[in-house]
Amino acid sequence: MSNDSLHASASLPIALDCLGGDNAPFCVIEGALLAHKRYPDLRFVLFGPKDALEKLLSKHESLRAQCDIEHCDQGIAADEKPSQAVRKGRASSMWRAIEAVRDGRASAIISAGNTGALMAFSKLILKTLPGIYRPAIVGRMPTSNGECVMLDLGANVECDAQTLQQFAFMGSAFARVVLEKENPSVGLLNIGSEMSKGKEELKEAYQLLDAEKSFNFLGFVEAHDIGHGRIDVVVTDGFTGNVALKMLEGTASMIRSFIKESFMSSLWSKLSYIVAKGTIAKLRKRVDPRKYNGAMFIGLNGISIKSHGSADGYSFYHAIKVGLGMVNNNLNARLLAELDASGALLDAADAEDKVVELA
Amino acid sequence: MSNDSLHASASLPIALDCLGGDNAPFCVIEGALLAHKRYPDLRFVLFGPKDALEKLLSKHESLRAQCDIEHCDQGIAADEKPSQAVRKGRASSMWRAIEAVRDGRASAIISAGNTGALMAFSKLILKTLPGIYRPAIVGRMPTSNGECVMLDLGANVECDAQTLQQFAFMGSAFARVVLEKENPSVGLLNIGSEMSKGKEELKEAYQLLDAEKSFNFLGFVEAHDIGHGRIDVVVTDGFTGNVALKMLEGTASMIRSFIKESFMSSLWSKLSYIVAKGTIAKLRKRVDPRKYNGAMFIGLNGISIKSHGSADGYSFYHAIKVGLGMVNNNLNARLLAELDASGALLDAADAEDKVVELA
Repeated sequence: MSNDSLHASASLPIALDCLGGDNAPFCVIEGALLAHKRYPDLRFVLFGPKDALEKLLSKHESLRAQCDIEHCDQGIAADEKPSQAVRKGRASSMWRAIEAVRDGRASAIISAGNTGALMAFSKLILKTLPGIYRPAIVGRMPTSNGECVMLDLGANVECDAQTLQQFAFMGSAFARVVLEKENPSVGLLNIGSEMSKGKEELKEAYQLLDAEKSFNFLGFVEAHDIGHGRIDVVVTDGFTGNVALKMLEGTASMIRSFIKESFMSSLWSKLSYIVAKGTIAKLRKRVDPRKYNGAMFIGLNGISIKSHGSADGYSFYHAIKVGLGMVNNNLNARLLAELDASGALLDAADAEDKVVELA
Repeated sequence: MSNDSLHASASLPIALDCLGGDNAPFCVIEGALLAHKRYPDLRFVLFGPKDALEKLLSKHESLRAQCDIEHCDQGIAADEKPSQAVRKGRASSMWRAIEAVRDGRASAIISAGNTGALMAFSKLILKTLPGIYRPAIVGRMPTSNGECVMLDLGANVECDAQTLQQFAFMGSAFARVVLEKENPSVGLLNIGSEMSKGKEELKEAYQLLDAEKSFNFLGFVEAHDIGHGRIDVVVTDGFTGNVALKMLEGTASMIRSFIKESFMSSLWSKLSYIVAKGTIAKLRKRVDPRKYNGAMFIGLNGISIKSHGSADGYSFYHAIKVGLGMVNNNLNARLLAELDASGALLDAADAEDKVVELA
């Protein structure tokens, strides 16, 4: 998503859950500050404890003028089950922030809180788009020559072929916005590229996608292909996608620590660090996972963005940027038009049966 | 596996498939040369084209003296299906090398050839160990503070709870040998650490493993935990394990290319590279995937090791080392004793029903 394509939506503010995540509300205000510097017209509506938020904002008059605060002191615990959260959480900052989107008072909601609760609340309040079987979590990942998008990252543990087919369409629409590619390439994640490999639902999904003439379908792809940057949209079930994403994060974090250790291992390496400092900083920045923060619950009748729970301000800022991009590009309207044109939409009654309750 | 614990098995040679993999037979001979330098008493029996092998060995008298050659000019193509390979491949170098293990003429077989064929042949010729439901592919992975082992890496696309339980035992036995840990910690790979997360078979496997008193069971672990080095044995189904391993390989390879690009990006960074060269070389070596080559088909009545298909000599050498470690440590005898003591063995008749034919 190039920065030029982003501008503050003139009409509606973005709703921020100020009680979600390990570092709330600080990371939320810091993220808003960074976003404010870049997009000074962007407005926010903050859901959280009024006094604490006023205090945090007291030094930032310019941002304060762009914010409405809706007082709320109930959060959702990180370990709360979605089903419990649904019963008890209707007065929570997360619930109320999502309601603001449903009621047309905000264009998108960003939360670093409990993923399961955010998904359950978003589905209950915003509902799925007509004809969508199941919403999915979609996010960006780094590759050698840019970025790709992957879904599902954890909303649906198991998926049938039709669901994977819809994921491919939703992922394509998302990629057109965030990667700015006219006809993104789509790969189905498997453990080999031959047709004989993998699970039955994957073989069936292959047939469905291969029959779509409008699609730039690459067929089966393997996890080590992702980093090469040939695949724009990686389609998989939520279990595999979640493992793949966390494996990428874990490996990147391990290698970042190796880089640091290597340059601290001897007097000579410490001296060479001083010379190479700028290059190493650039390198570490390139593999900085914070830039990829902000996964979207796609397939819902509204924009709901999940930030990493451990996000800091810089990281939360990137989640805000993802939300802004989705709003400015009318993602959902485009998505519906494309699904409609492709015939991959179910009628709503049929779809209702297929929605598996997360809570 | 420390080098001290390895010595050439006095009695039997190791069988090498000289027609498997992208770089055969060169990588095989180069790997054997590196192994010969370290373990001069180690003997090999080479299965491949006699004239070509004699020519390659002609400059290496000392290694030649440690090798027997069994002529064979039929290989298995990389894209051949296991079922086809089984029908046609009985005269192949791979088949005959495995037979040498069954017939007691070799202690282990190493091949960089077609994974599906190697698994199918190994199962047909060597058979599963009594009481084992399904063999698995187990390999090593780097972590922040050393290595861990993971299984299954691709032999079984889906696994029930009992199969995962046996994988935990087999993985532990393997880890005791390769990681030299008395009581390795075992984690079940899931998408969250809470009991409510993930697939049904995982929850059931959790209960089975939690009830094992002899086990250092960590419960559910997530993919980003692997790099931290807290988990010695990561247990998962073959689909997820294969994706996780390839994601690690792909990410490491992407970051290795970022390191190179960063230091080539400007005149200053090129100069700083000259100063930091030694440190960068050490760093690149630390994330060199060739050191982790050599996955074992565990649960079979014989040692069968799969090398990466694109292995070079250095990489193939590491696969030979894995085989040697398994032989010297009597892995299979230890594995059987442990499974027996734990009661996790089925009787053979019951087990026979559960074996799913890969071919």
